[in-house]
Amino acid sequence: MKFGGTSVATVERIRQAARHVKREVDAGNQVSVVVSAMSGKTNELVGWVNESSKLHDAREYDAVVASGEQVTAGLMAIVLGEMGIPSRSFQGWQVPIHTDDAHGAARITEIIPDELNKRMDEGWVPVITGFQGIVPATGRVTTLGRGGSDTSAVAIAAAVHADRCDIYTDVDGVYTTDPRIDPKAKRLDKVAFEEMLEMASLGAKVLMIRSVEMAMAHKVRLVVRSTFDDPNAPQVGPDGSNSGVPGTLVCDEDEIMEKHIVSGVTLAKAEAKITLRDVKDKPGVAAAVFGALADESIVVDMIVQNISEDGSVTDITFTVPDSEYDKSVRVLEAARAAGHVEYARITGSKGGAKVSVVGVGMRNHAGVAASMFKALADKGINIQLITTSEIKTSVLIDDAYAELAVRALHTYYGLDKPGA
Amino acid sequence: MKFGGTSVATVERIRQAARHVKREVDAGNQVSVVVSAMSGKTNELVGWVNESSKLHDAREYDAVVASGEQVTAGLMAIVLGEMGIPSRSFQGWQVPIHTDDAHGAARITEIIPDELNKRMDEGWVPVITGFQGIVPATGRVTTLGRGGSDTSAVAIAAAVHADRCDIYTDVDGVYTTDPRIDPKAKRLDKVAFEEMLEMASLGAKVLMIRSVEMAMAHKVRLVVRSTFDDPNAPQVGPDGSNSGVPGTLVCDEDEIMEKHIVSGVTLAKAEAKITLRDVKDKPGVAAAVFGALADESIVVDMIVQNISEDGSVTDITFTVPDSEYDKSVRVLEAARAAGHVEYARITGSKGGAKVSVVGVGMRNHAGVAASMFKALADKGINIQLITTSEIKTSVLIDDAYAELAVRALHTYYGLDKPGA
Repeated sequence: MKFGGTSVATVERIRQAARHVKREVDAGNQVSVVVSAMSGKTNELVGWVNESSKLHDAREYDAVVASGEQVTAGLMAIVLGEMGIPSRSFQGWQVPIHTDDAHGAARITEIIPDELNKRMDEGWVPVITGFQGIVPATGRVTTLGRGGSDTSAVAIAAAVHADRCDIYTDVDGVYTTDPRIDPKAKRLDKVAFEEMLEMASLGAKVLMIRSVEMAMAHKVRLVVRSTFDDPNAPQVGPDGSNSGVPGTLVCDEDEIMEKHIVSGVTLAKAEAKITLRDVKDKPGVAAAVFGALADESIVVDMIVQNISEDGSVTDITFTVPDSEYDKSVRVLEAARAAGHVEYARITGSKGGAKVSVVGVGMRNHAGVAASMFKALADKGINIQLITTSEIKTSVLIDDAYAELAVRALHTYYGLDKPGA
Repeated sequence: MKFGGTSVATVERIRQAARHVKREVDAGNQVSVVVSAMSGKTNELVGWVNESSKLHDAREYDAVVASGEQVTAGLMAIVLGEMGIPSRSFQGWQVPIHTDDAHGAARITEIIPDELNKRMDEGWVPVITGFQGIVPATGRVTTLGRGGSDTSAVAIAAAVHADRCDIYTDVDGVYTTDPRIDPKAKRLDKVAFEEMLEMASLGAKVLMIRSVEMAMAHKVRLVVRSTFDDPNAPQVGPDGSNSGVPGTLVCDEDEIMEKHIVSGVTLAKAEAKITLRDVKDKPGVAAAVFGALADESIVVDMIVQNISEDGSVTDITFTVPDSEYDKSVRVLEAARAAGHVEYARITGSKGGAKVSVVGVGMRNHAGVAASMFKALADKGINIQLITTSEIKTSVLIDDAYAELAVRALHTYYGLDKPGA
């Protein structure tokens, strides 16, 4: 059971979280708990580090920033103890959770689960600091980077062979789309890992991508649910299904009997598009363009390149966040001036919106893209760019039509209906 | 070099503290640094623990409360690094600093100095979290109790055989009396451990008693000085004397050539006196009285018992903080009702002040007490109680005369004069 920053932001909230733990323990389950730092605390610590030095030693950054989880782990163990549940806190080095030495963004290399298993067998609830570990060779504390607590939870679940990894957060599951855009959005009972990955990267920021990747690799079943729900409401059935449970199960595709063609509609706004006209079409041109942007740490999202008519010149279009638009144009003009990239002219604009439909069912259903374009055309929405992957189709449209497009597609694919 | 909570309260103050470290390093000294948590942080953490549960597991208290020092140690290492000084932070378990398992008030049992010595030999400055350690058998984090960072610093200084342990704080040394009471108070160049112990227990809260005891036992020379002084002012001479240095050396009596009869005058206000009249004078009576008070965690300060005239009954007088007066009376009335203590009646009052003169020179100078009483009588101040020890004489007087008494004694013993 993993509790995020908003779930442990105050002692009263830690108590609420602990009631969920008590319910699981009372039901006879063995439980380990993973906690984030109180919301805002990690930012405060990072602020101090940056104030101390712009060029700080990443090992010291980790020593400072890892302290937030230590606080909540201890408090959670105390609150559980008061509820009559034997509990103790573990810092990363006490478990131990081994990582590589990429301080600030370390990767977990091994978790030795013996002590956790022993404690759980004896009826204890270990409370483990998320987000951190230790480099075995140096004995230094590491952090896993932002959102690392989800990754910690999944890794621990894998190491102790947990039946489930429940991620408690401030939303009660994964929705077919953002309920603020379409009030008819429905919570999904189940969603496949692959779908979750696409949704996470498309702006449904419920779970960190890295933790979903790890869960998929180790086949750790995740449940996304809210800390603020009544801890004594009906829960997951013994069959492992979560019907009736206030949450979404993220699991292997095989576990989802009735696959929807489209599981969700996602939206990312403030996307700028940039087109390079008449690019000299020769090997290495794309690498030159996107290499120049990557060197400046500009993250490119959609990329479209058409086959050139006569094989000599082509157009390349891509999107970047609006905030990176001006910088991107400058970078590419400089690259042309330096002779690294050849093109006739550069055009583009800010204020685009990327709308995507995601679903593992697409794999076996032809024509999803075509039906999407038709649904948009019916509303008079012009499509500027199209990209597709195996389980996702995305279009770039004018920002002004973004919400209209999401609602139209949500209805078109039947996601409004009960039981969708 | 140890920096207290007010000395590391902000990143800017940590930077100021680091300038003192740089000066010592530049002078060719090997330095280890010990830091407290930012002032206020430990209270915040303790508050959360108490909010979590009144009856918390002390091991979890420690896990939470120890995190404050971790933050400042990392920040200090970063700031030193930016100044070009190779530095790394050490938590208690990383040094390691071994303690017993009395969580919340642990005692240091052993410090393994190898890693610290190795680092210092290589030109590094280790920055160590004060206040904390680890229980070797359980691998749990401990804290040493309030003021424990001073103790950590002294213990580390002893373990690495340091020439000196400099305690940086928000005052610039130990004074002959409180400068707020007598503006003519002078900073002492040197003070003996025994004097410092008496002064600390008498309200001059510059150093924690425990750290002074440990320094005395291990002959660790302490310097009390201010973080906020100019780091580039003239410093301790190569002979170890601190003439000209803005601070006070706390050292062995032997190192103080010219001993003052009286080194300082201290004051503790809000002392209540309680007298038990006609106490049945038999063995065990004092134990019964003070045992009853100790059971209720009431700390008794001065105790006076006269020899009874006829050997049958006596009077016992003692002082407690004003805030404990009513409770103390209730406890003793209950003890009489239960037959544990026999006395005729109980009298007393709040609003006393204890004034003390302290000095190792007293040992060899008769008549210090007598001269003290005369000095007070000259000002028309009535003495209510007297207690003496080898290097200290204390009197209880009416609160209203407290400051007058301090100033009178300060002048009487020549402490106003330059070079006193």
